[in-house]
Amino acid sequence: MKRKKEVTIYDLAKELKYSPSTISRALNNHKSISQKTTKEIQKIAGQLGYRPNSIAASLRNNKSKTIGILIARINRPFIASLISGVEETARKAGYNVIISQSNDKYDNEITNAKALYDSRVSGLVVSLGMETKDTKHFKQFVDQNIPIVFVDRVPAEFNSYRVIIDNYTAGYRATQHLIDQGCKRIAHFAGAQHLNVYKLRKKGYLDALRENNLEVAEDLIIDLETMSFEEGSEATKTLLNLPQPPDGLFSSNDTAAVSAILTAKAKGIKIPEELAIIGFNDDPMASVVEPALSTVSHPAMKMGEISAKRILDHSSKKLASDISEITMLDTEIIVRSSSNKINADQLLEIE
Amino acid sequence: MKRKKEVTIYDLAKELKYSPSTISRALNNHKSISQKTTKEIQKIAGQLGYRPNSIAASLRNNKSKTIGILIARINRPFIASLISGVEETARKAGYNVIISQSNDKYDNEITNAKALYDSRVSGLVVSLGMETKDTKHFKQFVDQNIPIVFVDRVPAEFNSYRVIIDNYTAGYRATQHLIDQGCKRIAHFAGAQHLNVYKLRKKGYLDALRENNLEVAEDLIIDLETMSFEEGSEATKTLLNLPQPPDGLFSSNDTAAVSAILTAKAKGIKIPEELAIIGFNDDPMASVVEPALSTVSHPAMKMGEISAKRILDHSSKKLASDISEITMLDTEIIVRSSSNKINADQLLEIE
Repeated sequence: MKRKKEVTIYDLAKELKYSPSTISRALNNHKSISQKTTKEIQKIAGQLGYRPNSIAASLRNNKSKTIGILIARINRPFIASLISGVEETARKAGYNVIISQSNDKYDNEITNAKALYDSRVSGLVVSLGMETKDTKHFKQFVDQNIPIVFVDRVPAEFNSYRVIIDNYTAGYRATQHLIDQGCKRIAHFAGAQHLNVYKLRKKGYLDALRENNLEVAEDLIIDLETMSFEEGSEATKTLLNLPQPPDGLFSSNDTAAVSAILTAKAKGIKIPEELAIIGFNDDPMASVVEPALSTVSHPAMKMGEISAKRILDHSSKKLASDISEITMLDTEIIVRSSSNKINADQLLEIE
Repeated sequence: MKRKKEVTIYDLAKELKYSPSTISRALNNHKSISQKTTKEIQKIAGQLGYRPNSIAASLRNNKSKTIGILIARINRPFIASLISGVEETARKAGYNVIISQSNDKYDNEITNAKALYDSRVSGLVVSLGMETKDTKHFKQFVDQNIPIVFVDRVPAEFNSYRVIIDNYTAGYRATQHLIDQGCKRIAHFAGAQHLNVYKLRKKGYLDALRENNLEVAEDLIIDLETMSFEEGSEATKTLLNLPQPPDGLFSSNDTAAVSAILTAKAKGIKIPEELAIIGFNDDPMASVVEPALSTVSHPAMKMGEISAKRILDHSSKKLASDISEITMLDTEIIVRSSSNKINADQLLEIE
């Protein structure tokens, strides 16, 4: 087993006949060292394979220049884009990104939070799991002044940064869009109601109905646990078997909405004529299903970028971590064929 | 700005009236300490908020208990599942996972490799970017005996672990499937040919044609740079405008294949009757498009798990890093409606 010896600042000092402190300053681009000397030292350092000891540096300042990400599942389009945004912003600032997923299990979230805490992350970006109903496991970060940014699925009560979309307005607008298309009996696929995102979308839905003087029918509101394809299909069958089936559907995610399109079509229901459907997230599959799914677009990548920036700013300004700051981003209603009753004869849309 | 002082082993020793070495052993579950004492010490340590100094531990053994992942883009279904597999396996073994994406840019890949090297990762999982044609930037890891696992998009020449699928056989079987359905003029969307995955899929395609005595027509083979939706649509238009258009299409990814379905349908082409299509990856959109896309399923999560295991095994056994070991996984042809000419009248498949 061959292994090259690590090149140190002292090796470089010996090789180049400068003092170790001159070498160190040149490697850190300190202005007390001339440009010429800096260039010479950096060139030789590169040739000899010198690398800064970032672990030693972390130990000195007790920080790791690392952003931790704690999310439910990596392989969801929204989450993957969110991570992508954090990574890109962090990388440009010379920060690493550590990811960990809870698979929506509360116990995993606690274990992963502890592991990230032990890794001395500079900050934490969190989107809560489906099962999470309390936030005790995040208190350790606040106690050590480590900034936390909750993003998308955020707790109702916790002093921290929050990066969210306006779920209430999005739910209201999505429902209003269906009403504008002439729908009178609008169903709703609601997600787990202890999570703010789903609760607020439902509230927007209810208020839009009420303000348009439409009846709120309890049998048209179906709470889905995981918003999966299978759950969406079952819920659609339940709705279509009602004595008075719905003529519109607002689903809190695209997966269940796409499932509703396919299930309803298989039962011979015309979409959007007999059932107009709008989803949430603008996942890639939304523009592929036929008719293409209307949806609410979610700036996932941007939410990740902003989350990373909050942590970087916090770290550079040495702010206290019990800051409560909410960044609320706009969403956009994307109208495609699945809800476009007024122009139902339009051409197939290819995006 | 409030910040609690860090609790050390010495604080615990003072509090509990044990020696610091007893405390340390108990926290590490050393068998020289009785179960009762271990339990007592761990309980109080938890109450006082003690956390092991993992940075100091990293410095002692010059390893960070971290697996680095270097990939092109996080927000692709295949890559997100791959990362998910690495993360789950690493987390169970007490390892962190650092991710970095190159966005398919060669320069970014070099910069990110250096950053991961400087972070002293225990091992590296890499899937090469679209632009990458050499592997000089990975030599630094080998020199320091840090194991590298190349996965999926792997270099042709590099002594390391490799976790791949049998792209040649998959390409051969996908093409043979179209031939079995009666296709005579089979087109191919080929990806960047300096990348092994696309080169081997094309080779499988060519050999299947030859061994079935079908003509290889150069105008039916289209090299796509990024295999995007837009490229797929353009290429489909080119194919359909040929004097003799194809009756079958094997696309090296699902994105371009789904695009081909939508583009061909918009031009009034019947799928699969006039054009049978098979893709590659089994992305979620494949089962949503109509007709549902036949494809080659890729065990992404499992590839991630195996990659992480290679690094964990390597680290625990202190193996040399110039090991060359190839793990080749099977793929599966998933037949859906887009290529099923023989049973084209089957029911709509909902998965």
